[in-house]
Order: sequence, then C-alpha cells, then structure tokens
Amino acid sequence: MALIVQKYGGTSVANPDRIMNVARRVAAYRAKGDQVVVVVSAMSGVTDNLIKLAKEITALPSEREMDMLLATGEQQTIALTAIALHQLGIEATSLTGAQAGIVTDGVHTKAKIQNITPKKVHALLDAGNVVIVAGFQGETSEGHITTLGRGGSDLTAIALAAALKAELCQIYTDVDGVYTTDPRIVPNAKKLTEISYDEMLELAGAGAKVMQSRSVEFAKKFGVVFEVRSSLNDNPGTIVKEETKSMEGVVIRGVALDKNQAKVTLVAVPDRPGVAACIFKALGEAAINVDMIVQNISHGTPTTDLSFTLDKPDLAKARKVIDAFKPEVGYREALVSEQVGKLSIVGVGMRSHSGVAAKVFETLAKEGVNIEMISTSEIKISVIIDLAKGEAAVKAVHQAFIG
Amino acid sequence: MALIVQKYGGTSVANPDRIMNVARRVAAYRAKGDQVVVVVSAMSGVTDNLIKLAKEITALPSEREMDMLLATGEQQTIALTAIALHQLGIEATSLTGAQAGIVTDGVHTKAKIQNITPKKVHALLDAGNVVIVAGFQGETSEGHITTLGRGGSDLTAIALAAALKAELCQIYTDVDGVYTTDPRIVPNAKKLTEISYDEMLELAGAGAKVMQSRSVEFAKKFGVVFEVRSSLNDNPGTIVKEETKSMEGVVIRGVALDKNQAKVTLVAVPDRPGVAACIFKALGEAAINVDMIVQNISHGTPTTDLSFTLDKPDLAKARKVIDAFKPEVGYREALVSEQVGKLSIVGVGMRSHSGVAAKVFETLAKEGVNIEMISTSEIKISVIIDLAKGEAAVKAVHQAFIG
Repeated sequence: MALIVQKYGGTSVANPDRIMNVARRVAAYRAKGDQVVVVVSAMSGVTDNLIKLAKEITALPSEREMDMLLATGEQQTIALTAIALHQLGIEATSLTGAQAGIVTDGVHTKAKIQNITPKKVHALLDAGNVVIVAGFQGETSEGHITTLGRGGSDLTAIALAAALKAELCQIYTDVDGVYTTDPRIVPNAKKLTEISYDEMLELAGAGAKVMQSRSVEFAKKFGVVFEVRSSLNDNPGTIVKEETKSMEGVVIRGVALDKNQAKVTLVAVPDRPGVAACIFKALGEAAINVDMIVQNISHGTPTTDLSFTLDKPDLAKARKVIDAFKPEVGYREALVSEQVGKLSIVGVGMRSHSGVAAKVFETLAKEGVNIEMISTSEIKISVIIDLAKGEAAVKAVHQAFIG
Repeated sequence: MALIVQKYGGTSVANPDRIMNVARRVAAYRAKGDQVVVVVSAMSGVTDNLIKLAKEITALPSEREMDMLLATGEQQTIALTAIALHQLGIEATSLTGAQAGIVTDGVHTKAKIQNITPKKVHALLDAGNVVIVAGFQGETSEGHITTLGRGGSDLTAIALAAALKAELCQIYTDVDGVYTTDPRIVPNAKKLTEISYDEMLELAGAGAKVMQSRSVEFAKKFGVVFEVRSSLNDNPGTIVKEETKSMEGVVIRGVALDKNQAKVTLVAVPDRPGVAACIFKALGEAAINVDMIVQNISHGTPTTDLSFTLDKPDLAKARKVIDAFKPEVGYREALVSEQVGKLSIVGVGMRSHSGVAAKVFETLAKEGVNIEMISTSEIKISVIIDLAKGEAAVKAVHQAFIG
C-alpha cells in the first residue's frame, strides 16, 4: 500500500469515455490498496474554447478574469472524474486547487505555488476516498483564483506529491515515456528506463516536449521521483530522479532536435564593454526569450559578430527591438535565418567521458552537416545546423551513440 | 446614486455579443454614479451540455459532484462579463458565489441560502468596482460548492439585494415584465406596473413562468422590492412589492393558464378517517407534487370520489404509486386525464370585492366551458377545465375583468 499521485492530461480526459478509462486505471490501483490522489487537466479543447470566447470580447482580457474563466476547465474534469469513479463503486471526492490548499502568489496566468496545506486532501484520503484535484490552478492568500501557466497540471501533481510525501508520482500522457530521441525521426529510438532531472531539463530546453522545465525543476528541488508513462497502455514509463552513479555509464541519454528556433547575427558590432548588455537587456524587456548566444573573440579588430537564437514566433517582435537599438549599438547589419535547427545531445555521462564533442562534430561532418553555432553545458552539446539537414543529423548522431 | 443589484439570465448572456450588451447597460447605470452588483447565470446551453456529459457516465451522478460541475457555468459568465466591462473602461471584478460570501446548507443541487457575508462585495464596491457575482451557487460552511436549484440566480440576486440593503433589484429577462395574461393568447394583455408578492406567488403557482416561487417568497420575507424587466430594451418593467392599499382597487391582477397538469380521480374511495392521508403520503414519498385536491362530501354513502392534479411528467410515476396503494385504500377505479388545463384568476382585490367567483363561473358558462374542479384561496380562483377550451376561457375571463 502506497500513496500515489497520478496526473492525467487533457487528451487522457478528452471525453466521458476516456474519463471512464482513467477511472478504471485509478480503480485498479485502489483495488491493490493504494491511496490515490488524481490531478487532472481540462478536457482537451475546453481551454481553447474559453480563450476564444474571451478574445471575441477583447484581444487583451484581464489576467485575473482569465484565471477565473480558465479555472473552470479543470473544475469540470474533477467532477466528471469523481462521477466516473463512483460509477465503479469507488469513493471519490473532487477538490478545486483552492480547496486542496494550493496557495500561489498573485501573478495571474503564471502564478507560482507558494505553499500547499493539504488538510482536506489528507482528511479525505484517511476517510477512504480517492481525491481528485484540479490541476493548473490555485488561490492567493487573499482568495483570488490563479492559474499556473503552461504545464501547470504537471506542476500541481509534483507539488502535491511533495506536500503529501507520496511514494510515487505518475505523469500520464500520450507517449510511453521519455525516448532517446523522437521515434518519428528515428524508428529505433529507445524508451529510457530512467533519466536524471538535469538530463530531463536539458532535453526539455532542447525542444523535447514531454514536460515543461518548471515542473522538472520543482521535482528536482523537492526530490520528487516521478514516472512519465502512457495512459493508453500498461507499459512501465520512464522514471525521472536524482542522478545516480550508474547513470554515468551511459554517455548519451538522448538526442533532440528543436525546429522552432531562428538565428540572428548582428554583423560588425563595436567591441566595447556594455554592448552585449544593451542588446540583451532590450530583448529581455520585450519578453523575448534568447536561447543560445555565441560571440567570437575579435582578434584586435574594433568589431565582432554576435549571434543568438530565439523562438521563431518571437522573431517579428525581435526585429523591431533590433531595429530600435541600431543607433545606440551601432552594428552594421542584422542577418536573420529561420531555416535552422538546434540539435542537442544530452547525458550526464559526458562529465566522465571525454571526446564526446569531437565524436559529435565528426559524425556531423561525415553527414555533410555544417555547424553554424556551438554551445555546450556540462551535460549537453547543442549545435545550430541547417534545418533541412536536421533529421538526417539526428539519425546519424543517434546511430553513432545509441544505435 | 443608488446601490443596484441586476440579474441577467442565460439568454441575456448567451454569447460574447450579448454579454457586451449587458456590459453596456451596466455601464450606463455606472455613468449615472450608481453602484452596481451584477448577478449572472450560465450562458444558455452551457448547463445542459455539462449535464449531458455527466449523464454519459451515469444516469445518477453524485449531487455534490454535479454542483462542482455545474457551478463552472456561472463562473465562466462572471469572468466574461468582467472582461466586457473592462473593455468599456469600467472597473469590474468577478466573484464566485463562495467568494461573495453566500453560505448555504449542504443539500446539494437544491441548497438553501443560510446567510450572506458580503465583505468582499462591499470592499470592491467601495473601491469603485462593479462586482459581478455568479448566480445559482454558494458554499457550505465546510467549504463544499453548492447550487441553489432552479431559479437559483434570481434567488442569488434577491438575497444579495437584501444583504447589501440595495436600493433596487432588477431581474432582467426576455419579457418586458409581468403581464395580465400570456400575450401569445391574449394580444391585448397588459403589462402590469406593479404587483404584490402574494399575487406574483399565486401567478407563479398558476403556471405563469416569469419567476420561481422561492425567489418571490424570499423577497417577500426580507421585503426586497424588485423589478422584472427586459434586457432587450429600456422599457420600465413590473415592480414586485408588498401589497399596498391602492392595489386593492384592481380586482384581478392576472389570468394564467397551466397546460402542464393532469387530473386523477379515484372513484369510490371508502369514506373513513386516514384514507386521504394514506393516499397523499404515498404520493409525497414518491416526490410527486400534488397541486389541487378536491373531495366532495359523501352524503352518507360509504364512499366518495377524490380528485387531484399533478404535473404531467409525474403521471407515469404516480400511476405506479396509485396502483400500489389500491389494496390498502380500496378505491374502485382510477380515472386519469391529461386533457385538462388549470385556469387561475389572481388579485388581492378579491378580498374586498365580492362576486368575483360568480362572475368567473358565469363567464365560463357563457363560453360553454365546463368546470371540472374548483379551488380557491383568498386571492385566487383556480378551475380545472377541458384543455381544448383553455385559451378561449383565458380570453373570455381576461375580457370580462381586464378588457
């Protein structure tokens, strides 16, 4: 008998049939004597419809009221999930985020969890209930409803698992777990049995869309071991946990391709102190998320070239900012390319294995892939390459390191 | 400057366009310097869709979870209404029933309001906000979300008006006010300027579907004067208030026809004490609402005929109950007719004007309408007649008393 927190995303609860499937899975754990807390998202489509209604009124709705509006999506799912469990003869009670004691700061639409007082959850569990908690939402200490932003339901599950000291936290999704790379690109991609928080974070940053980084960071901070697994079958998933000695035996955990990046190069930027600060402060103030930044030494010349990448959808906004600071910064010209891909190779084993970067570059060279930018961390190597050669590059690197 | 509570029903907030119309109306009052509390229902169709989802899972969903589910409908409308007011430059904040301090008992799906602590409402009004409160819902003192049942949003508005000591409570609907009779039957039916609580209650009981009785009863109990008016135009509506001396000058306030009744006659019921109790206890336990009951004296014979009316949809259930108590009660046969209409004539003026009943009966006789049952109260005369002659009877009685 264990206390388990299970999270089901929008596609897993998309309609009454799928909600019954979720209930059957919960019932099976309950039958084994486990205590179960279920965290659910809004049924897929519901949140988008609500956003559409608000946008029919104004392009810029109040964030407080958007939270009031969107929180209803998860509230609907918790009620329907409780009803489905009752139908199977399981005692179950639903709780909104506020009722479950999830207290957040007041930053509407992307609130941070401040603390959880799961008094009601404990009382209901003790009374033999499955407790169903609305994901993605909480309440400020003044009683305003808030939402946690993208990936918020994962965060709810992991934070609840920490607060309840759950033995297990399962994140159910529509994939079987975390793979060595995207199986749509490399058919013999392998499902990982386990992965460290840091590797998972680097993979998320590299464009592998299994989970939002903030949930993984939260899990790392509070030491919550969780499993990413499929709600469509009973296969074991991937355990995400603190790095262990044995993990270092594997050099490369995964390979990811991010097709959503654009590259900007500012040519002939005057090489004087404060220039980079000026550029990235302006971009930051416009809420443009810059990913990789590369600047070469300037060999005594008075100018240097500065390249960086950002999310493609931010490009239009970024162009305006770049144009605006041209007089102040004094670069000669701005080159922009959307035809780039970011290839990342991640693994804690890199720390103890030398020559990984060399092998990556060699593999890409053999494949005729030109490297436009390089950025490395202790456990990751990322390169910007031609988008058209992205998938071939993933295949080659996966073949070279994983098979 | 006054404090006004306005309630808008589901058709008035059916989509973003209509919600903008509501916002414009609220803004006009705000521009005059009034403080406004807006109570809204779910957008029409939303509640039905949610019920449909639950019914796909089970025919008998938990009432607590239905409240959790259905409360989301009004929560969506309050957020969208606040967003619409912001769009007009009006400061506005939405509150769920729980946030507005509406505390109910724990009878899920038909909870009764126990008290209202509108601390947040006052604070927001004082800060210059329009406050938008979710109708139809509250919270128990233990923090469970409840709903108030049919007509619940009207009740929320009237209860809030009482708690806030509002100067005015306006119930916006899709009709212009309360009419002397159904204008679809009698084209020259007149809109009433005012009507007493008791008359409104008798008309509601007589099948005039403007408002649920419980809201009117609540208003009467707490002396809340309210206006029923249209959200589609600016015409003044009908003021509902305590009876005044001047009201007695009008003999008949309204005429109503209820086509939704069925008549049951139990023939040759043994005339002994306790028989009627046995019959109506059994029907009551099956949650069948009996309206009129007529029993004639039995002239010394050992049996009597007993007739009563009930809502047509309850008839199938009633037949089973009636069959079941046949051995115990010992009636000879049960006659059932669905082809009946209940015609009601309502007016506090009846108290001081004699001969009203005689004039009703005479009018019906002239029209060739046979009276099957009669029931009267101090301010109402109801007769059961042939359904086919119902509309002609309404026209004749309206013509005789009102014109």
